[in-house]
Amino acid sequence: MLAMSRIEEGCTVLILTESGKKYLVAVRRGKKFHSSEGYIDLGELVGREYGCVVRSNTGVRMTAHKPLLQDLLSKVRRITQIVYPKDLGYMVLISGIGPGSVVLEAGTGTGVLTATLAYYVRPTGRVFSYDINQEYLEAAHYTLERLGLREYVELKHGDVYSEVSEKDVDAVFLDVPEPWKAVGNAWKALKPSGRLLSLSPTIEQVVETVENLRVGGFDDISCVEILVRDIRVKRGMTRPEFLMRGHTAYIVSARKSEINSRHITDDTWNENISPT
Amino acid sequence: MLAMSRIEEGCTVLILTESGKKYLVAVRRGKKFHSSEGYIDLGELVGREYGCVVRSNTGVRMTAHKPLLQDLLSKVRRITQIVYPKDLGYMVLISGIGPGSVVLEAGTGTGVLTATLAYYVRPTGRVFSYDINQEYLEAAHYTLERLGLREYVELKHGDVYSEVSEKDVDAVFLDVPEPWKAVGNAWKALKPSGRLLSLSPTIEQVVETVENLRVGGFDDISCVEILVRDIRVKRGMTRPEFLMRGHTAYIVSARKSEINSRHITDDTWNENISPT
Amino acid sequence: MLAMSRIEEGCTVLILTESGKKYLVAVRRGKKFHSSEGYIDLGELVGREYGCVVRSNTGVRMTAHKPLLQDLLSKVRRITQIVYPKDLGYMVLISGIGPGSVVLEAGTGTGVLTATLAYYVRPTGRVFSYDINQEYLEAAHYTLERLGLREYVELKHGDVYSEVSEKDVDAVFLDVPEPWKAVGNAWKALKPSGRLLSLSPTIEQVVETVENLRVGGFDDISCVEILVRDIRVKRGMTRPEFLMRGHTAYIVSARKSEINSRHITDDTWNENISPT
Amino acid sequence: MLAMSRIEEGCTVLILTESGKKYLVAVRRGKKFHSSEGYIDLGELVGREYGCVVRSNTGVRMTAHKPLLQDLLSKVRRITQIVYPKDLGYMVLISGIGPGSVVLEAGTGTGVLTATLAYYVRPTGRVFSYDINQEYLEAAHYTLERLGLREYVELKHGDVYSEVSEKDVDAVFLDVPEPWKAVGNAWKALKPSGRLLSLSPTIEQVVETVENLRVGGFDDISCVEILVRDIRVKRGMTRPEFLMRGHTAYIVSARKSEINSRHITDDTWNENISPT
Repeated sequence: MLAMSRIEEGCTVLILTESGKKYLVAVRRGKKFHSSEGYIDLGELVGREYGCVVRSNTGVRMTAHKPLLQDLLSKVRRITQIVYPKDLGYMVLISGIGPGSVVLEAGTGTGVLTATLAYYVRPTGRVFSYDINQEYLEAAHYTLERLGLREYVELKHGDVYSEVSEKDVDAVFLDVPEPWKAVGNAWKALKPSGRLLSLSPTIEQVVETVENLRVGGFDDISCVEILVRDIRVKRGMTRPEFLMRGHTAYIVSARKSEINSRHITDDTWNENISPT
Repeated sequence: MLAMSRIEEGCTVLILTESGKKYLVAVRRGKKFHSSEGYIDLGELVGREYGCVVRSNTGVRMTAHKPLLQDLLSKVRRITQIVYPKDLGYMVLISGIGPGSVVLEAGTGTGVLTATLAYYVRPTGRVFSYDINQEYLEAAHYTLERLGLREYVELKHGDVYSEVSEKDVDAVFLDVPEPWKAVGNAWKALKPSGRLLSLSPTIEQVVETVENLRVGGFDDISCVEILVRDIRVKRGMTRPEFLMRGHTAYIVSARKSEINSRHITDDTWNENISPT
Repeated sequence: MLAMSRIEEGCTVLILTESGKKYLVAVRRGKKFHSSEGYIDLGELVGREYGCVVRSNTGVRMTAHKPLLQDLLSKVRRITQIVYPKDLGYMVLISGIGPGSVVLEAGTGTGVLTATLAYYVRPTGRVFSYDINQEYLEAAHYTLERLGLREYVELKHGDVYSEVSEKDVDAVFLDVPEPWKAVGNAWKALKPSGRLLSLSPTIEQVVETVENLRVGGFDDISCVEILVRDIRVKRGMTRPEFLMRGHTAYIVSARKSEINSRHITDDTWNENISPT
Repeated sequence: MLAMSRIEEGCTVLILTESGKKYLVAVRRGKKFHSSEGYIDLGELVGREYGCVVRSNTGVRMTAHKPLLQDLLSKVRRITQIVYPKDLGYMVLISGIGPGSVVLEAGTGTGVLTATLAYYVRPTGRVFSYDINQEYLEAAHYTLERLGLREYVELKHGDVYSEVSEKDVDAVFLDVPEPWKAVGNAWKALKPSGRLLSLSPTIEQVVETVENLRVGGFDDISCVEILVRDIRVKRGMTRPEFLMRGHTAYIVSARKSEINSRHITDDTWNENISPT
C-alpha cells in the first residue's frame, strides 16, 4: 500500500507544470525530462510520494502525479479519431455496464474506448473488440498491454457488418463509419433488453442509424450530443474559457426489444432496409 | 443465465410506452399496471423475455425492459437535489475510480451518487458516505438495499467539514453546500495524487472552492459544466429538441499534491483561509 | 417630448409584476387590469411617467413600462411559428440592412420578422413581404397597422417559389418550408453581392438549401444556430437557469455572386437541381 | 443605382477566396492583391459588378464582394476587446433602438459598437459616445469617418462614472470595466422606461452590476449569454464545427423605473452601495 503511493524506477508519471502543461514521462535514474519550461532530473523523483513538487533548472514548479486511465489514454497515438472523456463517461454510464459485464465493441480503432470498457468490466467481465484493420488491432494490443488491461479484452479481426459470433452480451458499442449496417448483428449479439450505443460525427450517420434501429428490433432510441464548457475560475475574473470544443460526435442509444424483431431473423435483413 | 433474461414474479420492470413514457413496476400475478395509456395485466409478463411487447387494453404498445442502474435511480424519491447522468458519467470517468477503488463521499443525500460509485467500485472496493442528516442516511440505506449495493457502502453519520477518519482513499466526491470547508479533510483523507471532485450549482460556490483548493494542497484544478442536447431524429425532420436542461451544476476537479500542503498539517487550517 | 414619456389614455403599457410576469394592457379610465397577483385601476396610470410603480389591491408591486417593438411582437397571436429575438437580432445584423434598405421577405407568417425588418429600414426603405396564405397577410396587415409600420411594407399574395417581381433588393429573408425552391428567384431579385438569409428548424432543410445555394450563384455560405442562456444573477446564488430553449431554427446566410450563375438564367433551373 | 452595383476605382472590396479566407482591399489600377493563394490584378475589377469572379495567377477562384458594415468592422484594429456580431445583434434588438433613437454609449473603445449603433439610428438619431482614453476616441473618429457614420456620433472625452450631461436618451450601452459605477448616471440620462444594456466578460462584473441595478431604480433586469454554433453543411457530412468560441461576454439588460429611484436623486448614491 505504501509502495503504491511512492514513485518507483520504471513507472510512468504525469508531470504537470506550473503553466498547466501535462507530460507522461517514464522515470529512469540518470535521465532528464526536458520541456520548454526547463528540465528536471528524473532520478530525484524515485522514492518520493506521488504529487511531489520539484523545480526545473529554470525554477519552474512541476508536480509528478500518478497518472489515471484517462491521462494515459489522452496520450495514445491518434492513428484514428479518439473518443473524448465527455462522451466516454456518458456512454459507459447509460450503457449500464460495470464489473462483470460482457461487451461487444467495433471498431477497436485507437483502443481508447476498448481500454475504458475493459477498465470498468474488470475483473470478471470481458470486452470483444472487432476491427477490420489489423494495424489498429496491433496498436490496441500494445496499448492494452501497457495499461494492464490486455487480459480483459479479446481483439478480433473481423467485420461486424457481416458477422458476429458473440451471444447474450450486455451491451454493444459501435464506433464505425456505417453503424446502420451493424444493427442486425448487434441485435443478434445482445441479450434481451441489452443496450446499444453508437458514436458518429455527422448527422446523416445518425439519421440512418436511428431509422434502421426503429425497424430493426430496438426501442427507447435516443440521440444526444454532449458539450463541455471549461470555466476559468479566479476570484473577480471568473468566466467560461474563450475557446471550446464545439463538437466531437453524436451518441445514439437504444434497447433491444421484440418490436419488429421478426424482420431480423430473416437473413436478408440488411437488404430489406434501403439506406439512401 | 437464461433465467436472467426472463421476467420473474416479484422483479421490477421498466415499462416503456409507445409515446415514450417510462414507469418502474413490480411484477405481481393478479395485479394490473394502470397508466394514462390504458392498463396491462402484470401476470402476463411472467416467463416472457425482457424487451417483450404487450398491448394495453386500449391497444397501446408497451415494452417491458430490464431496468439498468440509472433507470432505477431516476425514480428515487427526490428528498434533495439529485445528480444527473451527464454529471455522474463525467465525474466517475475523470475520478479514475473502478473496481477495487476506495472512495469517500459527502453528503449522501438521495444516494444517487453513492449508488453509482458503489456500482463501479464493486466487488472489492468501498464507498464511505457521510451525511449530517440521519433521515437521508436511512433513505439511502433503503435505496442501496433494493439495488443490491448496500454491502459496498459504509453510511456514516457525521460532518465532513469537521472530521473524517478515512485515510489513503482514491477519490473524494463532494456534493455539499460549502465544499470549501471540506478541502482540508479531503486532503488528509486522500492518498498521494488522489482525486477530488466537487459538484455545486452556483458559481460563487465554485469560486470559493477553487480558491481554497489552490492554497490547500491541490493542483490540476479545473471546472467544467456539461450540457446535453437531445436530438429528435427522424428522416427529413431532424433537429435538436426545443426544450433542454440549461444547467444542473458545475464540476470542480483537482489532484492532491505537496503544493502548500504544510499549511494543512496545521490544525488551524480552516481558520487560516477566510472565505468571504 | 414630455408627453411621450407620460402614459396617456388609449396607449398600450407593458405591465411588469413583482414576480416577473409581463402583460400588454390598453389603458382605459374606469377599467381594471386583473391578474393572478391582484388588480389595478388603469385610470390611475393616466398622466404618470412610464416606469411608474403601482400596487395591486393585494399589495403586489407592478411597473407600467412603455413597450418596445419586441415586447409588442412577443404577444402577437401565433398563427404560425414565430421568429425569436436571438435569431432576429443576428439575421438583421449580418444582413447589413438599415435605414433605406430594400428587402424581400417570404413568408409573411405572423409578421414578426416583417415588422422587425420594417422597423430597421424606416423611413426610406421598404419591405416586400410574400405569403401564399391570404389569412396570414390579413393578420400581418393588422399587426403592422397597430405597430405604425404598415406604410413601410408591401404585403404581396404570391408564391416566391414560382415568381418574384422585385429587382435589386439589398437582402432576401426566407422563412418558408422549402427554401431551396426559392433560391433561383432570390438570386434574380438580389442586387450584386446582395445577402440571402434563410431560417429553418430542421437540418435536412438546411442541407438542401445550402447545396442549392452552392450551385445556384451564391458564395460565402454559412450556417449557424444561436443559443441563449439565461443567467439567474443574485449575489451568492448565481447560476444559469435550469431550463433553456434548446433550439428554434438554423440560420443560413449567403451572398449573391457570379459563381455558376449562368445556370440560373436558364428557366429550367428549378428542374435541374434534384432535391431528394 | 447602377453605379452602386459596380466596382469603382478607390472603393473597398471584400475578397473571398475559394478556401474561405476574407480580405478587405482598396481597388487601385496598377496594383496587385497578393495572398497565400496567389495574386490578382486589382485594375481588372474596375467596372465589373460586385460578386464578380476572378482567378488568381495560380488559378484560385476569388470573388469581389461589396463589404457590409460588419465586414468592415471585423477588420478594425483591435486596440481593445471588440464586440462580436452575436452580441451586437441581440443588444441592438432588445434595446429597441432604431432610426431616430438617441443613445448614450461608454466606452467608445474600438468603435465597433459605436459604429453599429450609429448605423441603426441614422439618419435622424444620434449616438453620444464617452471614453476616458483620448487615443481610443481618435481611432474611433477615424473608423467612423471611413464608414461614413461620423456625422451621427458625438465623441466625448469623459468618465461616465462621474458625470454625464445627456438627458432623456432612449438607451444606454455600457462596455466598461466597472459598469456598476455607471448605474446612477445611466438612470439620470435615460428617459422613463429607457433601456440599459451592459456587456461584461466576467460573472463577478455581472453580479455587481445587477445588484446595483436592483437598488438603483431599474427593473426587468436580466442576464444572458449568447452562443453561436457554426454548422458545416455538406450532404452526407453535416455536423457542427469542431471548434467554437466558448465565451465573449455576458449581456445584462434592464429598464429604468421608479423603483427605489429616490435613492438616486441623492448625490451620495455611489457611496451608499458598497460593491465588494
